[in-house]
Amino acid sequence: MPRTRATPAGTPDGRPGTHEAERLLPPPRDLSRLCIHTVTTRPWSLPEAAAAYERAGIPAITVWREAVAGHGPAEAHRIIADHGLTIVSYVRGGFFAAPTAAARRAAVDENLRIIDEAAALGAPLVVLVCGAVPGQLLETSRAQIRDGLERILPYAEAAGVRLGIEALHPVYADSRSAINTLRQANDLADDLDSPALGVVVDVYHLWWDPDLRDEIERSGRNGRLFAFHICDWKTPTEHLLLDRGLMGEGCIPLRRIRTWVEAAGFDGYREVEIFSESYWREDQHDFLEKIKHAYLTHA
Amino acid sequence: MPRTRATPAGTPDGRPGTHEAERLLPPPRDLSRLCIHTVTTRPWSLPEAAAAYERAGIPAITVWREAVAGHGPAEAHRIIADHGLTIVSYVRGGFFAAPTAAARRAAVDENLRIIDEAAALGAPLVVLVCGAVPGQLLETSRAQIRDGLERILPYAEAAGVRLGIEALHPVYADSRSAINTLRQANDLADDLDSPALGVVVDVYHLWWDPDLRDEIERSGRNGRLFAFHICDWKTPTEHLLLDRGLMGEGCIPLRRIRTWVEAAGFDGYREVEIFSESYWREDQHDFLEKIKHAYLTHA
Repeated sequence: MPRTRATPAGTPDGRPGTHEAERLLPPPRDLSRLCIHTVTTRPWSLPEAAAAYERAGIPAITVWREAVAGHGPAEAHRIIADHGLTIVSYVRGGFFAAPTAAARRAAVDENLRIIDEAAALGAPLVVLVCGAVPGQLLETSRAQIRDGLERILPYAEAAGVRLGIEALHPVYADSRSAINTLRQANDLADDLDSPALGVVVDVYHLWWDPDLRDEIERSGRNGRLFAFHICDWKTPTEHLLLDRGLMGEGCIPLRRIRTWVEAAGFDGYREVEIFSESYWREDQHDFLEKIKHAYLTHA
Repeated sequence: MPRTRATPAGTPDGRPGTHEAERLLPPPRDLSRLCIHTVTTRPWSLPEAAAAYERAGIPAITVWREAVAGHGPAEAHRIIADHGLTIVSYVRGGFFAAPTAAARRAAVDENLRIIDEAAALGAPLVVLVCGAVPGQLLETSRAQIRDGLERILPYAEAAGVRLGIEALHPVYADSRSAINTLRQANDLADDLDSPALGVVVDVYHLWWDPDLRDEIERSGRNGRLFAFHICDWKTPTEHLLLDRGLMGEGCIPLRRIRTWVEAAGFDGYREVEIFSESYWREDQHDFLEKIKHAYLTHA
């Protein structure tokens, strides 16, 4: 059961002056800005997911590369279009950091293919998990990431596909991303300064960051806030990758972060991305209903 | 087996100009600045640990509260003194954040008892894990932490016991600490500005932080760098709390961080703190030899 969460107005025993009174947005009125990542309902094939989302009144879809694998991007586009769904993002590119120059060149080539796939799929955005190599200094990985981005940006611009840098929680700094705060993602995007390059705000990765509000404002001000991913952080978290919670189940002040994101000018979809072995074991139609309820209550 | 780690000089395929050439300290020459936290050899009672550390040539000990429980601090002091060990820290106080005023008062009282215990034990420093309440805004927890510290500081000053704020990795922001970067710990210590209040640098919690070097310099400059904890971050990490690695087993650039810490003026013990169910299953005497070897090779 979703727990009641302390909001600024309702913090039990909150000391006055602890934080300014903050006006939060109301919950979403309807499903018109709800998007689901196919990985959230991983047991379903792409055709099953697209059909189920349509039936459930969900208007948009973000597509994981593994969901496309059996079809190819053009067929995947047709499947999705047949169900009247809007494609929000293609996930995921990146992984630019690598220990050898050959491996880094291979990563660049792979990202060019991903951009081609996104274009064929009709996805306007590729989400980037930037990469890290265990034992390699994070600065070295960051320089390699910058270099990889620089090499693929002209291709993305030409293809009309945008790239969104997703800062990953510091718990993934060892092996998945050397970009671990929104400030770092903004710095990188500002530095490379392309209209095709922006950032992705995923509440799971960023909720703890004391600079989050400022950095969300900054990315919005600079026109670089490309996507917004939602879920929750459970206490306890049983698995580092595959135990995300449904909105409202955990400690993330989602309404508050959504308020910041939308105050910064973001008017795109709110994308539900939940990696969860326990939810994947459930009936996925039931799970979809839980997602809709959690979205309308807690997003 | 410890893997070879890329240092700035030895980064494979490192692009020139990626980072300045950095002169790192050599490994420790001997064990004279090695300290072990009793939780590292958790299967041992305090008398067993103290006897084993002495036999192994380890000069210093940090004492977990659970290790003292069966003895009381005065007897624990005698046990440790009989083995000629220096007591570095008493672990741990804190947990100031709580949902009710009564619970926060109880936390303050508990911290006063911990200060008394540290004084009776002869420990010059209490390490603080500051606390967080799942679902309570982190700013609220931070205000409660500040308030709790303010209440116990005069008592600590009078007792001659120092308090060290340990910033915890953001993966623990949900339930263990709303202080997640060294910058936050430094801000808090600067704000409360007491000679009894400083910070603890634990590489496990802080290694990923792009501001780490600057904040270590800052804490040293302000005379607030009270303790230095070492271990490693394994890839993959199987358990969020109990799968820390031995120095050299993971991705933390330990030599580099030790160089920063000692360049900032820290000349205290390097404390090994490894929570590890797999090491706790080993013969603890063998484990102690591994720790010594890893310390002399990778610290």
